Amino acid sequence: MTARPLRLDPDRLFPADPSTRAIARALYADIADLPIVGPHGHTDAGWFADNEAWTDATSLLLAPDHYIYRMLYSQGIDLDALAIPRRNGTPPTDPRAAWGVFAANYHLFRGTPSRLWFDHVFATVFGIEVALDVGTAGQYFDLIGDKLATPAFRPRALFDRFKIDFLATTEGAQDDLSAHHRIHASGWGGRVVTTYRPDGVIDVEHEAFKPAMAGFAELTGEDVYTWTGYLNAHRKRRADFRAAGATATDHGHPTAATANLSNAECAALFAKIVDGSWTLADAELFRAQMLTEMAAMSVEDGMVMQIHPGSYRNHNAGLFASHGRDKGADIPTRTDYVRALKPLLDRFGAERNLSIILFTLDESAYARELAPLAGHYPCLKLGPAWWFHDSPEGMRRFRETTTETAGFYNTVGFNDDTRAFLSIPARHDVARRVDCGFLARLVAEHRLADWEAAELAHDLTSGLVRRAYRIDQPLPAMLAA
Amino acid sequence: MTARPLRLDPDRLFPADPSTRAIARALYADIADLPIVGPHGHTDAGWFADNEAWTDATSLLLAPDHYIYRMLYSQGIDLDALAIPRRNGTPPTDPRAAWGVFAANYHLFRGTPSRLWFDHVFATVFGIEVALDVGTAGQYFDLIGDKLATPAFRPRALFDRFKIDFLATTEGAQDDLSAHHRIHASGWGGRVVTTYRPDGVIDVEHEAFKPAMAGFAELTGEDVYTWTGYLNAHRKRRADFRAAGATATDHGHPTAATANLSNAECAALFAKIVDGSWTLADAELFRAQMLTEMAAMSVEDGMVMQIHPGSYRNHNAGLFASHGRDKGADIPTRTDYVRALKPLLDRFGAERNLSIILFTLDESAYARELAPLAGHYPCLKLGPAWWFHDSPEGMRRFRETTTETAGFYNTVGFNDDTRAFLSIPARHDVARRVDCGFLARLVAEHRLADWEAAELAHDLTSGLVRRAYRIDQPLPAMLAA
Amino acid sequence: MTARPLRLDPDRLFPADPSTRAIARALYADIADLPIVGPHGHTDAGWFADNEAWTDATSLLLAPDHYIYRMLYSQGIDLDALAIPRRNGTPPTDPRAAWGVFAANYHLFRGTPSRLWFDHVFATVFGIEVALDVGTAGQYFDLIGDKLATPAFRPRALFDRFKIDFLATTEGAQDDLSAHHRIHASGWGGRVVTTYRPDGVIDVEHEAFKPAMAGFAELTGEDVYTWTGYLNAHRKRRADFRAAGATATDHGHPTAATANLSNAECAALFAKIVDGSWTLADAELFRAQMLTEMAAMSVEDGMVMQIHPGSYRNHNAGLFASHGRDKGADIPTRTDYVRALKPLLDRFGAERNLSIILFTLDESAYARELAPLAGHYPCLKLGPAWWFHDSPEGMRRFRETTTETAGFYNTVGFNDDTRAFLSIPARHDVARRVDCGFLARLVAEHRLADWEAAELAHDLTSGLVRRAYRIDQPLPAMLAA
Repeated sequence: MTARPLRLDPDRLFPADPSTRAIARALYADIADLPIVGPHGHTDAGWFADNEAWTDATSLLLAPDHYIYRMLYSQGIDLDALAIPRRNGTPPTDPRAAWGVFAANYHLFRGTPSRLWFDHVFATVFGIEVALDVGTAGQYFDLIGDKLATPAFRPRALFDRFKIDFLATTEGAQDDLSAHHRIHASGWGGRVVTTYRPDGVIDVEHEAFKPAMAGFAELTGEDVYTWTGYLNAHRKRRADFRAAGATATDHGHPTAATANLSNAECAALFAKIVDGSWTLADAELFRAQMLTEMAAMSVEDGMVMQIHPGSYRNHNAGLFASHGRDKGADIPTRTDYVRALKPLLDRFGAERNLSIILFTLDESAYARELAPLAGHYPCLKLGPAWWFHDSPEGMRRFRETTTETAGFYNTVGFNDDTRAFLSIPARHDVARRVDCGFLARLVAEHRLADWEAAELAHDLTSGLVRRAYRIDQPLPAMLAA
Repeated sequence: MTARPLRLDPDRLFPADPSTRAIARALYADIADLPIVGPHGHTDAGWFADNEAWTDATSLLLAPDHYIYRMLYSQGIDLDALAIPRRNGTPPTDPRAAWGVFAANYHLFRGTPSRLWFDHVFATVFGIEVALDVGTAGQYFDLIGDKLATPAFRPRALFDRFKIDFLATTEGAQDDLSAHHRIHASGWGGRVVTTYRPDGVIDVEHEAFKPAMAGFAELTGEDVYTWTGYLNAHRKRRADFRAAGATATDHGHPTAATANLSNAECAALFAKIVDGSWTLADAELFRAQMLTEMAAMSVEDGMVMQIHPGSYRNHNAGLFASHGRDKGADIPTRTDYVRALKPLLDRFGAERNLSIILFTLDESAYARELAPLAGHYPCLKLGPAWWFHDSPEGMRRFRETTTETAGFYNTVGFNDDTRAFLSIPARHDVARRVDCGFLARLVAEHRLADWEAAELAHDLTSGLVRRAYRIDQPLPAMLAA
Repeated sequence: MTARPLRLDPDRLFPADPSTRAIARALYADIADLPIVGPHGHTDAGWFADNEAWTDATSLLLAPDHYIYRMLYSQGIDLDALAIPRRNGTPPTDPRAAWGVFAANYHLFRGTPSRLWFDHVFATVFGIEVALDVGTAGQYFDLIGDKLATPAFRPRALFDRFKIDFLATTEGAQDDLSAHHRIHASGWGGRVVTTYRPDGVIDVEHEAFKPAMAGFAELTGEDVYTWTGYLNAHRKRRADFRAAGATATDHGHPTAATANLSNAECAALFAKIVDGSWTLADAELFRAQMLTEMAAMSVEDGMVMQIHPGSYRNHNAGLFASHGRDKGADIPTRTDYVRALKPLLDRFGAERNLSIILFTLDESAYARELAPLAGHYPCLKLGPAWWFHDSPEGMRRFRETTTETAGFYNTVGFNDDTRAFLSIPARHDVARRVDCGFLARLVAEHRLADWEAAELAHDLTSGLVRRAYRIDQPLPAMLAA
């Protein structure tokens, strides 16, 4: 079988109607090359600190990508065959063989964003011109391995090649930020910053809550087992994170529930969390109260809050037992915002210095709850289509269901939200194309003037994200030095 | 900076595909000039009674429009700067300055229906040919003020110019309908009628429940603090409203819950409502029972019931404290219909004389609950896309998700549902265009014949609304006289 | 009035954009004539066993079609006028008159799938060339009656003419399968098989639970009133059904709840079910547990499970009293899957031999819950758009909201799910056209190569359904003999 060509069409993702496509093309041409701003993601800061070469396609592109192996797993493929680590160690699978399994099943990704991202990576990062399939798997594996061994494919070189202007990683409250400190100490000019994600010391249901608290105590020197000490420890760590460039916090909770307890109630609840006598309702209430406490600290220190609620984590009990968390078994759930956020908003809804970016995995909330909330409260903005919805159709639905109520200006641009560093340009490119397609439709339907759409294309790509994440505000002393 | 032109494209809102657009254009041409029927809205009857000139752009177009100021507020603009009244009085903001704030931020409305409506008003009502922005704000303010001072811009003149055939306002059970009586007494030929909205004497959680009940007692001469007297009072007021042209009632409840209690249970529940010993569950149960009571009265008197459920009113506690209700802080919530309506339907589902029009702010209910309910029960019809969904995308989703199950003939045409009188033609025009676009797609995809689409365009514009709201049935004596 | 022509456009249901339409047309041309596989439906096995002629349009096409008479009923038409059977007998309505009522109201179905199906049946099955309306009603009734009397319109002749390769009916656990036995004994070559649907002996809230249990006992010789005997009886009947060609079971529950009780808990719960002391919660828990028991048996015997949850059956109390169940008064409800399915998945999620096909009437679950579940669990697949959503827009939404997360390969092709035998080709044709239209859009937007779309069009039409329902696996002895 002759290999199929791999070719990225310059008009990909634009609407098919010729007049609309022409408008989209023009809008896109104007913003396609703007630098990338990645205000929320999960790349490894160590890559940029140490700038070591990645070794092979499987360990870089396949094994860490839960979008990929969950789909293969759903079709009956054993995770061991893909070299996915188990709790008791990584299976001794030949990386080349694992890559072959992926290639032989690449058709499963037809119609998915993973397919778009991978083809973009193959074509633009590695310059490959044949499609991935069982016949080209070996050729791919070798070529990618060879290129990764060259200086041009080290993390910092790709960071520059990708024209990344700002990249946020995410670290836990118990992280010592050493990788970020090494980046800053190195004198390298790339702006890679951290984000404060304290879930590990807030979610008492997490299996690693105790060691996280121990690390939190050690790093802060606070008695984190008292309510006052615990809050002080958060304040200290937020200052540490700001010193490492952070402009934002992030909160991944099962629900969007917030609470507004009295100080005495907080102390009593916290005592139960600490002494292990908590119920599931206590755990939820504590998470809810902590969102409000984090908002209180954001009012003080100006850090932007991100709330990512609604994932039922580790739904597959057997897989969690064998492989641990984050193995593609997180399933979205119906998520309420209107009642959930009210305690926090009752207390801080009018604060000028507070900015909260809301995300959802429940698209039914876009038009019904999120756009009306963001279209009213000064402190609320809408994060982009998230996770399962970070896709052409998902982004289109996001714009179609939020714009008419919240407008464009209560949204915050794109998040790549990824640990797959090589896919970052692909993901931003999809977002830019889909946004230009949406704007083009508004122009074609005479709902927006062409010059307005051009302004908006710039804002959706660059202006909104920079403002929403406060990335051009004066940096803290350590970084500015 | 040269001012940008303001021009309404004759093809606006039609699909971009040329063949579909041509069909839409032809359908629209045929119904574009049909008279306006506004069976549900919130204009001030006093305008038509007294026919006094409005004074300026800000007090007419800006200050009463919660779509506008909630968006500006969401972007950090102080409501005082927009001359929005506080509980303790209207801020001494210069109307011209307030208009300037609006104009300077007009870009925030890109992609929203407010933008479409305003441009339509500016272009067609006032004949303005330059776009609103910071540079043209003063010119706009002056021109609008000048025109409003002329006879052609008095309420009745505009009513005629807009070709309004029927316009319903909404009044509370405690309203004396004096404005409507003045209209009728004046001999003016415009058909402006009232709608019976008794929420104020049904929702015991409303802060003005007690004064509303006092007014209700006074106007009816009934002992409204007994269950029997209370029901009698409703019957008397419904008769008063019918005498003032009403063909419909309207019920804006937090949920769609209905109940079907025994008379003894009703009396016991009502006693708690009246003596103040009610719980939140009692308040909800009372509202639920009253929907069923209103249905019972509609079976007797033929008034069409409208149910508008699912808004969490006055969500912003701080704003409610400073500015009171209806300040753009009403947020939709998830709304159930299937179980909620069953008690009412168990009792009255088979009544030939009952007609209930259901609305929703929860679009997920369209295909799942509302279309199946309306596609089965003879007494149920679907109101058009409401409030946040009264928009091009919202209307399109309404048709796409209800038509296949409920058909077109279980829907009731368009409601402008507005207090912004000048925007009424704009709103109807958007609905007509979006409906023609939807019909055009069905024709282009050979799912409907062209002559059927033409018939439907007429029905969606005129036939359905006239029948659903019974506006061509014999009028009560007082009006016919 | 001259009759309007009835003509099925060859491009019907394809997107209007010319380039996209051309792609859709080419994809469709390639799969339009593939044989029909109907793995789930409700035709009467007796038709194929006895091969008797149907008598008239009304009793064949109108009276059994709840899509049709619910819509007519919703517009105030009396079911008696349509000859719909009451509990106490069929009204003495002239079938020709009933057909006339339908014809006079045929416009009510504009924009609905019923209209598409009926026109397809009229044009292709009966060769009619004028549209149905009040003027052509009699002509239609006569022509259809005449044709039905001919050999070419007997069930088996149409089965062959429709190129049906596989057709599953649905029978209850208390059914003796005699019609299927007659089919097999007849030596006729059509593959009509049964499906095991045990709801009647699982749902204790069903009014006929007791007689169903009696039949279940009689057919199996088991003491079905003990937990052990009851499970044994299910095993025996599943074997009977497999012997009659079944490859699947089907479960129509109010919710998707599953449970995983201990054996002792099961026995105690079952005792309450049997002795009548159950509560509504017990009834729900028993249904939930039985889904898990059915999964356990499917692990043993390889039968594919179908779960159809979320219908509120017989919502119209008055109609249920006069006419009984299945009269178009079943209304979808909000349906949760993530928590509901967890007990079953915790126990059997990793079983290689288990295949569960999930359906929904709550489209908000597609992107949020169902696609992520099917895109992860090896045992889960997504059934096609069901019931109210078995329509062009419903199918389009299904693809748009599931594909990006679950891919195409976790779906299972089309189900006609109908008792309207003559409409089966029409329904499959709609599905094929809509799928080709969706694929064409992906090609036109350069998200899929043309050859991939062609492969997918085949898989969506034939490959996926054959594999998902295991219809090409070795047949049990009785059939293979």
